Amino acid sequence: MKNVAVILSGCGYLDGAEIRESVLTLLALDTEGAQYKIFAPNKMQHHVVDHLKGEEQPGATRNILEESARIARGEIEDVSHLNADDFDALVLPGGFGVAKNMCSFAFDGSGASVDEEMVGKIKDFNTASKPIGAICIAPALIALSIGDHKPTLTIGTDEGTASELEKLGAIHQVCMTSECVVDEKNKIVSTPAYMDDNASIADVFSGISKLVKNVIKLS
Amino acid sequence: MKNVAVILSGCGYLDGAEIRESVLTLLALDTEGAQYKIFAPNKMQHHVVDHLKGEEQPGATRNILEESARIARGEIEDVSHLNADDFDALVLPGGFGVAKNMCSFAFDGSGASVDEEMVGKIKDFNTASKPIGAICIAPALIALSIGDHKPTLTIGTDEGTASELEKLGAIHQVCMTSECVVDEKNKIVSTPAYMDDNASIADVFSGISKLVKNVIKLS
Repeated sequence: MKNVAVILSGCGYLDGAEIRESVLTLLALDTEGAQYKIFAPNKMQHHVVDHLKGEEQPGATRNILEESARIARGEIEDVSHLNADDFDALVLPGGFGVAKNMCSFAFDGSGASVDEEMVGKIKDFNTASKPIGAICIAPALIALSIGDHKPTLTIGTDEGTASELEKLGAIHQVCMTSECVVDEKNKIVSTPAYMDDNASIADVFSGISKLVKNVIKLS
Repeated sequence: MKNVAVILSGCGYLDGAEIRESVLTLLALDTEGAQYKIFAPNKMQHHVVDHLKGEEQPGATRNILEESARIARGEIEDVSHLNADDFDALVLPGGFGVAKNMCSFAFDGSGASVDEEMVGKIKDFNTASKPIGAICIAPALIALSIGDHKPTLTIGTDEGTASELEKLGAIHQVCMTSECVVDEKNKIVSTPAYMDDNASIADVFSGISKLVKNVIKLS
């Protein structure tokens, strides 16, 4: 039975992990008969966004690990405890949490600063030749971490975002929501998911299911 | 194409909607080719729980509609705008939000007070002979609303909770997580989902998928 680490970045697509992508990742892993363990950074979110209005809530603060625990139903650990030796693969659901809390890609594109701990975990899996699944905007963190390996990635069809990934060394491939892109050499699998705001949840699940199947196949 | 209303009670199983049940409900509806629209009460949560520690956060406040908007990706309306005439069916995902924010069942069992607006919406669908799907602890709100119709319901296998539902007039039926109970006369469909804390997400999705199929069949 494969053992997969999943790292969340909060709870809500505008300031944390994309909730649906996170849940559908767990469903796909369980359906494939893989075990999973959930992690998140134990630090404060970049900011808090009111998801009704789509506006920042000035002065509000939330902890990434505590909020991720809502999706994990409390079964979650500080990502600093994550040891790649204990797992066969890593999956990163998307949401602005990846691009705001784990790096500053949402604000600075290819010039983004990064959370060194997160980059370290990605490099650990990559160096050990263990596959990584990156959903939605998570490929940006892959490009920021191992862009020098020229990973083939997708963030869907958005040319502006794709060109920022290519500035980091990645090779971007256009992809539909219901599909995924597999880089066998670098063992990186990616799917656009809610990069398209109007995607149907069934298509998002199709793409994530294919990503998970390929991640497990490569492990 | 069937049009289904979904009412959420927050975002996180200890103080709001059970996130996974909410997402899997949307996936099942989309997979069955049904349209959905998401609603939530526009009022403050009973309290806020730190899902990492499982403890109440004293002094913290969150609005149910704003938090539910995280799952709904902002596509959500105040439940006071919900008109049963516009929909073919209603689905209520579970989580303590149902038993803390929509009624006081979590604290008072069969002696619970209720949110009269929520009871009104449930009665509207029931009076119009439109089916209602109730997931996890949501059958408690059904029993509190229309227990006098003697609906057949399940909350899984927990005898203590089941006996509280029966005090309200409901007839309880034991059910596995991966299955659902159908009351054809009252058009109430229920499934236990995360009433079993150790349920697998694939079993929860199986139960919710069957619930959604039956709700659509009855509409």
